Amino acid sequence: MFNRTNEIKVLRDPIHGYIHVEYQVIWDCINSREFQRLHRIHQLGGDFQVYHTAEHSRFAHSLGVYEIVRRMISEIPSICESIDEFERIQVLCAALLHDLGHGPFSHFFEKITHRNHEEITVDLIMDPNTEVHKCLIKAHQDLPLKVAMIIEHRHEKEVLNQIISSQLDADRMDYLLRDAYETGTSYGTFDLERILRTIRVKDEKLCIKESGMHSVEDYIMARYHMYWQVYLHPDAKSYEILIELFFKRYKEIDEIIDVFEIFREGHIITNEEFILMDECRMFYGFQQALFSKDAILRDFATRILDRHLFGWIEDPSIEEEKTVLNRIENKEYYFFKTRSSSKAYLPYQEKDDKQTIWILTQKNELKPLSQCSEIVKALLKMKAQTKMRIYFSK
Amino acid sequence: MFNRTNEIKVLRDPIHGYIHVEYQVIWDCINSREFQRLHRIHQLGGDFQVYHTAEHSRFAHSLGVYEIVRRMISEIPSICESIDEFERIQVLCAALLHDLGHGPFSHFFEKITHRNHEEITVDLIMDPNTEVHKCLIKAHQDLPLKVAMIIEHRHEKEVLNQIISSQLDADRMDYLLRDAYETGTSYGTFDLERILRTIRVKDEKLCIKESGMHSVEDYIMARYHMYWQVYLHPDAKSYEILIELFFKRYKEIDEIIDVFEIFREGHIITNEEFILMDECRMFYGFQQALFSKDAILRDFATRILDRHLFGWIEDPSIEEEKTVLNRIENKEYYFFKTRSSSKAYLPYQEKDDKQTIWILTQKNELKPLSQCSEIVKALLKMKAQTKMRIYFSK
Amino acid sequence: MFNRTNEIKVLRDPIHGYIHVEYQVIWDCINSREFQRLHRIHQLGGDFQVYHTAEHSRFAHSLGVYEIVRRMISEIPSICESIDEFERIQVLCAALLHDLGHGPFSHFFEKITHRNHEEITVDLIMDPNTEVHKCLIKAHQDLPLKVAMIIEHRHEKEVLNQIISSQLDADRMDYLLRDAYETGTSYGTFDLERILRTIRVKDEKLCIKESGMHSVEDYIMARYHMYWQVYLHPDAKSYEILIELFFKRYKEIDEIIDVFEIFREGHIITNEEFILMDECRMFYGFQQALFSKDAILRDFATRILDRHLFGWIEDPSIEEEKTVLNRIENKEYYFFKTRSSSKAYLPYQEKDDKQTIWILTQKNELKPLSQCSEIVKALLKMKAQTKMRIYFSK
Amino acid sequence: MFNRTNEIKVLRDPIHGYIHVEYQVIWDCINSREFQRLHRIHQLGGDFQVYHTAEHSRFAHSLGVYEIVRRMISEIPSICESIDEFERIQVLCAALLHDLGHGPFSHFFEKITHRNHEEITVDLIMDPNTEVHKCLIKAHQDLPLKVAMIIEHRHEKEVLNQIISSQLDADRMDYLLRDAYETGTSYGTFDLERILRTIRVKDEKLCIKESGMHSVEDYIMARYHMYWQVYLHPDAKSYEILIELFFKRYKEIDEIIDVFEIFREGHIITNEEFILMDECRMFYGFQQALFSKDAILRDFATRILDRHLFGWIEDPSIEEEKTVLNRIENKEYYFFKTRSSSKAYLPYQEKDDKQTIWILTQKNELKPLSQCSEIVKALLKMKAQTKMRIYFSK
Repeated sequence: MFNRTNEIKVLRDPIHGYIHVEYQVIWDCINSREFQRLHRIHQLGGDFQVYHTAEHSRFAHSLGVYEIVRRMISEIPSICESIDEFERIQVLCAALLHDLGHGPFSHFFEKITHRNHEEITVDLIMDPNTEVHKCLIKAHQDLPLKVAMIIEHRHEKEVLNQIISSQLDADRMDYLLRDAYETGTSYGTFDLERILRTIRVKDEKLCIKESGMHSVEDYIMARYHMYWQVYLHPDAKSYEILIELFFKRYKEIDEIIDVFEIFREGHIITNEEFILMDECRMFYGFQQALFSKDAILRDFATRILDRHLFGWIEDPSIEEEKTVLNRIENKEYYFFKTRSSSKAYLPYQEKDDKQTIWILTQKNELKPLSQCSEIVKALLKMKAQTKMRIYFSK
Repeated sequence: MFNRTNEIKVLRDPIHGYIHVEYQVIWDCINSREFQRLHRIHQLGGDFQVYHTAEHSRFAHSLGVYEIVRRMISEIPSICESIDEFERIQVLCAALLHDLGHGPFSHFFEKITHRNHEEITVDLIMDPNTEVHKCLIKAHQDLPLKVAMIIEHRHEKEVLNQIISSQLDADRMDYLLRDAYETGTSYGTFDLERILRTIRVKDEKLCIKESGMHSVEDYIMARYHMYWQVYLHPDAKSYEILIELFFKRYKEIDEIIDVFEIFREGHIITNEEFILMDECRMFYGFQQALFSKDAILRDFATRILDRHLFGWIEDPSIEEEKTVLNRIENKEYYFFKTRSSSKAYLPYQEKDDKQTIWILTQKNELKPLSQCSEIVKALLKMKAQTKMRIYFSK
Repeated sequence: MFNRTNEIKVLRDPIHGYIHVEYQVIWDCINSREFQRLHRIHQLGGDFQVYHTAEHSRFAHSLGVYEIVRRMISEIPSICESIDEFERIQVLCAALLHDLGHGPFSHFFEKITHRNHEEITVDLIMDPNTEVHKCLIKAHQDLPLKVAMIIEHRHEKEVLNQIISSQLDADRMDYLLRDAYETGTSYGTFDLERILRTIRVKDEKLCIKESGMHSVEDYIMARYHMYWQVYLHPDAKSYEILIELFFKRYKEIDEIIDVFEIFREGHIITNEEFILMDECRMFYGFQQALFSKDAILRDFATRILDRHLFGWIEDPSIEEEKTVLNRIENKEYYFFKTRSSSKAYLPYQEKDDKQTIWILTQKNELKPLSQCSEIVKALLKMKAQTKMRIYFSK
Repeated sequence: MFNRTNEIKVLRDPIHGYIHVEYQVIWDCINSREFQRLHRIHQLGGDFQVYHTAEHSRFAHSLGVYEIVRRMISEIPSICESIDEFERIQVLCAALLHDLGHGPFSHFFEKITHRNHEEITVDLIMDPNTEVHKCLIKAHQDLPLKVAMIIEHRHEKEVLNQIISSQLDADRMDYLLRDAYETGTSYGTFDLERILRTIRVKDEKLCIKESGMHSVEDYIMARYHMYWQVYLHPDAKSYEILIELFFKRYKEIDEIIDVFEIFREGHIITNEEFILMDECRMFYGFQQALFSKDAILRDFATRILDRHLFGWIEDPSIEEEKTVLNRIENKEYYFFKTRSSSKAYLPYQEKDDKQTIWILTQKNELKPLSQCSEIVKALLKMKAQTKMRIYFSK
């Protein structure tokens, strides 16, 4: 029913060996303007300022997620059997397109626009004017809606939602492996092959055979380490703060930098504006700011372009904080305090059914991971920490 | 003072790239009869019957431990500075020779002879008739004794003992990486480079800079996973049981298989007998047993040579156990129960000072790992499990 | 004499494990504006349009070349002994800075500006207004000149030139390994460790001990394969052609796109303009062109941004070429012929002394590689091929 | 028609990730006595005396060849389509069992028994008393014969012979990758995935699509390097010489070492004797020889067990040879000359159709590799070298 490409197209990939494309609609989506844009959005935002090789984009990651899902739905018998071809296409498209709505320096963008990336992804997919919408609708008139429903976790076939977003989803599996590879750390490594071999579907739930439980433990630890070593690195946060402060200043002065006008309070960003707004455009804007009349704006532009990061102290004593403060003249711009709870980054939690990883026991019953794994039971007792950090110009 | 080899000798190694030998005494020890014998002792005993590529020997591992120690004492400033050349030689020799006393199928051998491998290692090093003793004493008259003292954890320079045997010793680091490499699992992988970069000595204690703490957490998890996935695999235990039962039978019948006579109750194995006794000799003995008049001995010999393992059930219900028992005729030989506590294999414990991993905080203080790492704090609460398993002929 | 950093700074790197920085001047250069800019220049230009993961920048590569040189001058005895600290600093800086003068999409930039990147590198280093110049001169007043001389291959100490640029230079070693890693191909792999272990200096010539000859053969083959599989891939060329045609059109029409004005015929690009001109700025320019009144310019901008490549046929028959031509309306812009000789990419040539790889025989004599290696002797007989290709809009 | 295992059985393998077994007959063959014996035959004979980690056995390699063949016949469309299930089973069994007839220290064994390993493999497969024969015949009465015919390269379906033995066979692909992995060299690495993706069958010939040609060039170079760096290493030859000289002596004296009696001139080794004769048994024999009354035999046994290799000089001058000879007392045993032509190890030859690698051009024609690849054309001109070496006691 769905058109296939002439022959299977393959794209070389260091994480998966090859990405295999066999449906025309996938190939069309890859070649759409909105997907190609992802080449200009770093997967890890400004983390390349900390790990200098973390220069990979959401383009490569999106292909990787697609490939993992492709393998899931063709290699895992209990998934193969429970979904038809149209559903296969839906979940493959959702995998490929799930990150379409990421703005430049993702966290910053979500903060300044008050919109999260999933919302924008759905907008782009449903907008009849986007190329990606046209590719999808050409393949099947309901395809855009179905893909959007998976992205919003409300597809009627529960397992499709879980494949794209759950504690064991293809998204996380690809990014852990890819980010570890690109940063050159070994922390994100886990046994993808074994996990794929032991995933099952039971009672509409994605689960893992007991024999794969140790791989899941390993994967949870990989997540934990990547969060602390890479994603939450204080210097990465420092870079984000510079961008935030730049725009705080930009909004206070009356100079105009064309490409940044869409960030003015009150402006609603259109899809067309969004598609143009990538990290290249941001860097061009920062370059423009080098010629600003405002010294503070110029300074932050320089810091962003040339990596003059703020220093930082974790949980400073009152004296330490005071010493720093005394040294800083313009405290509004050159002193910044963050207080972050690690709650969201505890290695594993089982707050509700959806956040639970299910184990399929040898007796063919589903049990929450924490009841099967001694180590996870221990990890569940781990407490969130709150850390205060002060950032300041050196 | 100590002779160096003409030029640095290098041996290609998949784990470390190269093994570098610069002292003549090391080269001599490698070429000694007792060390060469290690090529005929599998690193993982009968585990090659479970992981078919786990065919590596204690020879390669011993070189690996040596290489890690060599790097420790030449790359870590606080170690370099605190030991002199003679002490360097001592700890290098101890690293190289620490496994000299392993018998064939190590656990089995320790059980049947009631001697542990460290004891035998010391015996061989101190025996004036062994080649290895002669190599050592040629370099320095106190060298055998000093090496033996490190093996026995009672060298006066505490840090030397810790390098060879502690929670962060070179032994474990090599075998985790090597066993993971040879079995093809990813579980044993951790960041050796980072650990080596962050090891320090403070107050005569080996410790890790706080910035290396995550690597240590990763290493502890690697240990945990290797224990459960590889070292304690039920099929590996099954193979060990076959060997145990073979000798139980051998002692009960009056046939004589020459090479096995040293295992008779009451016989004290000499160093000369020990050196000859390797796994090749064992396999030859099992081949001889194929021609025994005793059907049970023949059967176990066949099982050992041709990998006819016992089946097993973990924590069987009473019915399951009964069903099995009813099927077995000769219960003495074809039914076997094990009860193992995982206590010894909890990922990490801090029973006493010596078992503690010390973290060197940014304020230059030593703290136990469990006070610094949330994840280790959680792991310490993990409970030992007791598992019962029945093994039986299929 | 030269300031050292407080402690050795290390940067994680997937190719070398860590990049080690011990001199302040190196750290300062890394933090200079001109070096930070390299994060916005892809190492492989538009090749990420062919190998989707080839998104790494010249920043990472430059650090890699620096690290290889750092190892060469500290690990290879015959190099260590022959250069003093000032010369060490010179060659380290040259390694780090050798690619400073690369414009966006390097080949394109050299073509349109008629200047090669080495020339610009030297300009930047010698310009008293650049940050990099200031960093260098702060360390030693002759340092900029000395570094420039190495870049220009005319330093009086011949071996320093060879380390940076010769058939066995650190530049090639890093990029082969790095590009292979980032593209996920295995072709570029060779045994860097062994080559570093067997490099020597004899009669002012960098050479390889005979025992390392096979590693060199392997490295030559790696080069050969990377050229044909990655660097000369027809689709990469296709992307370059799009950029070329874009500017051909741009120069013909009278619209102005600010960021592209520096490419007008006759304009001499200043160092300041050069430093601003990175690939982000280029992409911004292409975005601007989407709103051009000129349909052809708009079309090429779209093609560049959204990867609508030309198709191509290699050595087409006359009929094939005719068929294509008949289909194309605007042949000036939508048909393009290339004729390339592979001469420059023969795996190995010995045109003159400087292009020769020297082998240090066991008898301590220097011989050209081709006299020692049967395989290289065979490769020297390989003939250059000339290939014609036509590119055209699909 | 053919029984399948209950579920697909998987064996972890570092080269292939997993070995997949789906047919009962394969599982039975793996568990046969003759196949289990391969665990006691090193893949590289005495090469572990040169590369200390080369301790892997023919067991692991045989599984690897099986796995590559399994992928070939299930993933390559033009193979899948041209063979039926029975033929699939035949070629899978042939892959698994092709090395069954290797004696201990393979070259030595073939030399002393004047039989090659393929002959013995066929003997074992056809002998109604072997377990392996019983496994095969249980699955299909013609299976032993069909498997034997593939081993002998005379199966009527030509492509099955080529899969097992040709210039592009699964045997070589596995051993190059595996030996490189186990020795820790990078030389044997090539892109197996790409080769498997581009293999086709055309006119009953295994061939490679033109787009895979570079992978084949890479593979040919891998072979070349492995031969010179690993397989033909002079020290490996030195170890073989020791074994040869041991038996030369053994045959001259009248002492009896039980396990070696089968090597007496005139004795025809039965299949039963062959199956017992593994490298463990050999080492036991050498241990026995330590107690010989003959000093020379004792000396060679010691050398073999403890790695006291002969020294060697390549292409010695007349003086060098004389100097050595003057020093040696017992020239019959302690001086050994070899003259080896590298003819057999030229990287690639096209002596006849069967030795040719065929390329499937884009126009769907078959051409010999040498007509398509410039580099192979060059390699074909490479000349064989003859090297003389003298070996002698140090």
